[in-house]
Amino acid sequence: MGDPSGIGPEIIVRAWRQTVLETNTAPVAIGHPEVFRQAATRFAPELQIAEIATVDQATALPQVLCCLPAGEADARQAIGAGVSAVGGQAAYEAVVCAAQLALTGQVDAICTAPLSKAALHQAGHDYPGHTELLGELCGAPEVAMMLYLPAGEAVSGPHGLGVVHVTLHMALRDVFSHLTVESILATCQLAHAGLGRLQAGPPRLAVCALNPHGGESGLFGDEESRLVEPAVALARQAGMQVAGPLPADTVMIRAAGGEFDGVVALYHDQGHIALKLLGMHRAVNVTLGLPIVRTSVAHGTAPDLAWQGVAETDGLLAAIGVAGRLVDHRAARDG
Amino acid sequence: MGDPSGIGPEIIVRAWRQTVLETNTAPVAIGHPEVFRQAATRFAPELQIAEIATVDQATALPQVLCCLPAGEADARQAIGAGVSAVGGQAAYEAVVCAAQLALTGQVDAICTAPLSKAALHQAGHDYPGHTELLGELCGAPEVAMMLYLPAGEAVSGPHGLGVVHVTLHMALRDVFSHLTVESILATCQLAHAGLGRLQAGPPRLAVCALNPHGGESGLFGDEESRLVEPAVALARQAGMQVAGPLPADTVMIRAAGGEFDGVVALYHDQGHIALKLLGMHRAVNVTLGLPIVRTSVAHGTAPDLAWQGVAETDGLLAAIGVAGRLVDHRAARDG
Repeated sequence: MGDPSGIGPEIIVRAWRQTVLETNTAPVAIGHPEVFRQAATRFAPELQIAEIATVDQATALPQVLCCLPAGEADARQAIGAGVSAVGGQAAYEAVVCAAQLALTGQVDAICTAPLSKAALHQAGHDYPGHTELLGELCGAPEVAMMLYLPAGEAVSGPHGLGVVHVTLHMALRDVFSHLTVESILATCQLAHAGLGRLQAGPPRLAVCALNPHGGESGLFGDEESRLVEPAVALARQAGMQVAGPLPADTVMIRAAGGEFDGVVALYHDQGHIALKLLGMHRAVNVTLGLPIVRTSVAHGTAPDLAWQGVAETDGLLAAIGVAGRLVDHRAARDG
Repeated sequence: MGDPSGIGPEIIVRAWRQTVLETNTAPVAIGHPEVFRQAATRFAPELQIAEIATVDQATALPQVLCCLPAGEADARQAIGAGVSAVGGQAAYEAVVCAAQLALTGQVDAICTAPLSKAALHQAGHDYPGHTELLGELCGAPEVAMMLYLPAGEAVSGPHGLGVVHVTLHMALRDVFSHLTVESILATCQLAHAGLGRLQAGPPRLAVCALNPHGGESGLFGDEESRLVEPAVALARQAGMQVAGPLPADTVMIRAAGGEFDGVVALYHDQGHIALKLLGMHRAVNVTLGLPIVRTSVAHGTAPDLAWQGVAETDGLLAAIGVAGRLVDHRAARDG
């Protein structure tokens, strides 16, 4: 459901029919039934809301949203309330419920709508976001967010483009102490494994340089020769297809043009400046390193748009589609 | 002319006819006549090369390239030679000649083709590029490069989009010691003055934040509150329209969408990742802070394409067009 004050409920009800018709599944909406009912009344009046007690009661009818209630919070109070503890708690309890269903094999994958970090904090849950919360719920020691742009207008490669960051939410000044051969190599491994589930052949990865012009042969910094090159060499020894370090201002154009399937960015803006320009609202957030399949929209709660029925559903539909591909890959692998 | 081994000579001869027809000027090509003659023979066979002794002998005939010979070097030797001292020297002497003609008022503006920094160094001229060389030739204490994308496909604002960097060719690690309230303010002033010559109203500037999410209220670094905010406040006090600090991963989308006319980037890749994606080969390099009008193509010598007749001339034509607008503005200002 995500935070009830955001655009989550309305994009779920508006995308429901298409989701059922296109995925050949019986999806379950997890959260407060009354929140979905209000969203449906306003933005998808043909949709019925059916409360179910267990996942196996879910149907594959496009006109029926099957809702498994999660959490005690009266999440309705969060609608229109902006950032609130009750909204954060409702989003939290929906995620916890979904993760438990996935961990016990009752659902094949989870796909999350946006929550508000501030509301999560107000509700007493101190996680930077979904990714870290899910890592803890699943007992996964090393998780990372991959922002994945499916092949399309902005990405001409056949497999789409995944971007994984070595460092993310920290001051630029602190990036230097977090960049190590080990952290770059671990990110390559997560990207290699994650993208390998979304395409047939081995993923072709590129690792960004830290400095302008890729360091211009050591003239502008030594992180390329000291950190990135050894990490790339180790990744290649481990059998991965990895290029780099490559100048950060052209690697994304090359990748979007189809030369690479994945890019390892060393810091937040290095990846995000390009991703936003390439159309981040269409990107899918894939959590790497979990024992379950989890995708999410890459956009936020968009409080300025919420409960107006105008938010685009493309991101949610793309996230559901990528979750389906990951489930299919797992099924094929496991026979 | 730029470096004879690069794409400069061929784009000049191929763009000549359109330049004369569209600008209503009598342009002068500065460099070795034989280099232009070889380029014309191969890629613009209808074009005649006429050597002139002084600028006032230049004609406005689209089928005649008037060349003012510059330099003693036998620049023909540089064709096909890759990075060479003779090529660097030829490019250097063409720039020096052009700058002197502009400083003495014999030409209204200069527009330069790409040179090779490595060749410039081999010829004994240790400048990072055109910008610093021209600053010295013109005795200008504070110069900066503005990369300017004219309004068009990628930039929907009416005035185009100019990007000026506070720091440029240095290791990312060294950026922190070069970012000061003074250096950010000085860059705002250069951007304000430069863009003010390319549009009617006052330029609307945005200054990038250094840290992710614009520092997220101090959670990720303090450079926003300590450096950028005071610089923006001073710029506003001085009468400039400046917004910021703004998160770097969305400011370029907002600017390209027409919300700002100029962006002040704090480091190389912050501006260049976005500029390359927006189409840097169409960008125009405008030197800010000079007493003369000087523009340039934003691309390099492109040795892999050179002397094949396939390099795009759009960048050169855009640079000539922007130089013309700057000259018109100066003429209007000076009555």
